[in-house]
Amino acid sequence: MELTLDRVYQAAHVLKPVVNRTELVHATRINTNCDLYLKTENLQNTGSFKIRGAYFKISTLTREEKDRGVVACSAGNHAQGVALAATRAGTKSTIFLPAIAPISKVEATRGYGAEVRMIDGVYDDAYEAAVKYQQETGAVFIHPFNDPDVIAGQGTIGLEIMDQLSDADAVIVPIGGGGLISGISFVVKMLNPRCKVYGVQAAGAASMYQAIKDHKLEGLDSVSTFADGIAVKKPGDVTFDMVSKYVDDIVTVTDDETAAAILTLMEKQKVVSEGAGAVPVAAVLFNKLPVEGKKVVCVVSGGNIDVNILSRVINRGLIKEGRKAELTIELLDKPGQLVAVSRIIASMGANVTKVDHNSSAENTDINGCYLTVQMETRDFAHIEAIRQKFIEEGFKLV
Amino acid sequence: MELTLDRVYQAAHVLKPVVNRTELVHATRINTNCDLYLKTENLQNTGSFKIRGAYFKISTLTREEKDRGVVACSAGNHAQGVALAATRAGTKSTIFLPAIAPISKVEATRGYGAEVRMIDGVYDDAYEAAVKYQQETGAVFIHPFNDPDVIAGQGTIGLEIMDQLSDADAVIVPIGGGGLISGISFVVKMLNPRCKVYGVQAAGAASMYQAIKDHKLEGLDSVSTFADGIAVKKPGDVTFDMVSKYVDDIVTVTDDETAAAILTLMEKQKVVSEGAGAVPVAAVLFNKLPVEGKKVVCVVSGGNIDVNILSRVINRGLIKEGRKAELTIELLDKPGQLVAVSRIIASMGANVTKVDHNSSAENTDINGCYLTVQMETRDFAHIEAIRQKFIEEGFKLV
Repeated sequence: MELTLDRVYQAAHVLKPVVNRTELVHATRINTNCDLYLKTENLQNTGSFKIRGAYFKISTLTREEKDRGVVACSAGNHAQGVALAATRAGTKSTIFLPAIAPISKVEATRGYGAEVRMIDGVYDDAYEAAVKYQQETGAVFIHPFNDPDVIAGQGTIGLEIMDQLSDADAVIVPIGGGGLISGISFVVKMLNPRCKVYGVQAAGAASMYQAIKDHKLEGLDSVSTFADGIAVKKPGDVTFDMVSKYVDDIVTVTDDETAAAILTLMEKQKVVSEGAGAVPVAAVLFNKLPVEGKKVVCVVSGGNIDVNILSRVINRGLIKEGRKAELTIELLDKPGQLVAVSRIIASMGANVTKVDHNSSAENTDINGCYLTVQMETRDFAHIEAIRQKFIEEGFKLV
Repeated sequence: MELTLDRVYQAAHVLKPVVNRTELVHATRINTNCDLYLKTENLQNTGSFKIRGAYFKISTLTREEKDRGVVACSAGNHAQGVALAATRAGTKSTIFLPAIAPISKVEATRGYGAEVRMIDGVYDDAYEAAVKYQQETGAVFIHPFNDPDVIAGQGTIGLEIMDQLSDADAVIVPIGGGGLISGISFVVKMLNPRCKVYGVQAAGAASMYQAIKDHKLEGLDSVSTFADGIAVKKPGDVTFDMVSKYVDDIVTVTDDETAAAILTLMEKQKVVSEGAGAVPVAAVLFNKLPVEGKKVVCVVSGGNIDVNILSRVINRGLIKEGRKAELTIELLDKPGQLVAVSRIIASMGANVTKVDHNSSAENTDINGCYLTVQMETRDFAHIEAIRQKFIEEGFKLV
């Protein structure tokens, strides 16, 4: 079944009572070369856009199918989206999760009314168990992205964007399996073909990027990114075809760039984004796309990031922006050296946050030692000035 | 000049082109005993409500006064509010900051168009320099709270809340100097006297709480809280009178409770709040107020929190919620002990994040040592179960 604009309008009608029409925020406080807007799906029910596709899909089921319930396999946003969508539709949901899933995500999924089954092993084991359950019970499997009705649901974001900013020049969308961008790009190109649609993937999980480049549907052996919402090994055939047809270009961003974008969204716009949700902003901040001077909408697709990871992300983001730095200084193991180092740093206006004094590292002279100093700094120029100062004063930096 | 509702309506009219009518978010994902709404002033321009009062105040100045410019002293939200308000009003602003102010706040204030003067010393020194500048130049001093027009500006939040949720049972507002709650409580009591208005202060800076309790305007010698936006030693006379008249009750929350509220706002609602902005939610989460079953609006007044502090706050919040714990175990300094400890923790389903093995602590036996283990846990019951397990297995906990 091919997607039609009619189907997306129908989805919008069905979704009205259960999803928020999320705000399109004019992000004037983020310093970029374009006029930036954020479609804040991180503030959506369940903390991500996933409820849109899941709820519309479930709404299309027959009474008999609904009675058999729905099943899904996911440790992330899809699990929560299906759980709440099913509960709102009065349908039973069974969600299979790998046992390694974080406690917070398990609790959230259960909280939205799903029956949660924890399966020993990794995602693939949980997936197998879900398929087996589906075959035994006849429950309806809700695919996270490769389904035209799921895509129609995600496409309602495109309708909202076109209504909220009809003269947008470009819409930038994260890509994991490709469901979100398939829906949005279809709608945007139907309504305003001159508006560009760009996709962004994590460099460590660039499956769609690679498939489009090679003009064939293929998968990666492994993926590596902290943006778990878009860590997908292989796109679907439906989404691959739609992305081939409607998306203007795909770029990738590193995890450090994504961390810097999460930090920027928190500091400047006061919103929490997960890795997957921040990749479009990362692409803008690090000039991966030709959007200078344009009206640009970044879809911030979700905000479900584990707070423990968030602490680490803040740290990486500060390093990436030159606001936190570590210097390792080789010095003689004699009194007064620490005073000299402290004095230099203070005189340069940096703020020491941690000091590690190591006199038993393997490759130091028996009289030497390493001093590792962590500091809060202003930017990279500031860090470089501090380094120069140490060298001028006769210290050896490692 | 006494505050009137007319004046607040006038402020609302004047503010229309420069401030956002911030969303009133129905916080269904936060688990409380009431029906909770958030007035998201942390998403306001400049990241706090302060632009409202500052802009309205500046709008009331004569042409001649505007030509002399405005001056303020603050390292926080008031500085940014005055800076942007003045810039939007086409007026020059000079902001005095103590030299110890964080780099990020200085940059933000300058970014909004103020001339920033850094003064050696603490806040009081910067204040003196600002007063001196005011006397020399005739610039208009913009008080952060003790001014009826500043209060009228903040009161526009009350108008919006009454419009967005006309049947609210209670509005909960942070108190520092008292400008915000003076404006909001005045409006609420004028329009809907049966709606309660509660104030919340940090336990370490409970100046208004104490003054109201003692029925006299007095100050504290010192304040101590990470909620810098409400760390005020002495309320103003105007705000003291208004709070006495219009506020139903004031409660205090600890910094740990505030940290837990910031964490909850991030995890459940995906918004960043500063300490001052989170105290009303802390009061609800920790049952400080009689709001069970009521429709409650918490004013999240600002989101300008330093990200380095935020990292620490997340940590404190996790500890406060029982989701992070540290155990110190005394053990014999012989092989195999670490294995035994690790096995127990793994069997209990906790996740080790840090281990510190210390065999030279001052008060250990020469053959003994301390093992400090940091873990991610589910809740306090989980932590207690782990402690019991260690005791059962013959370990001694410190």
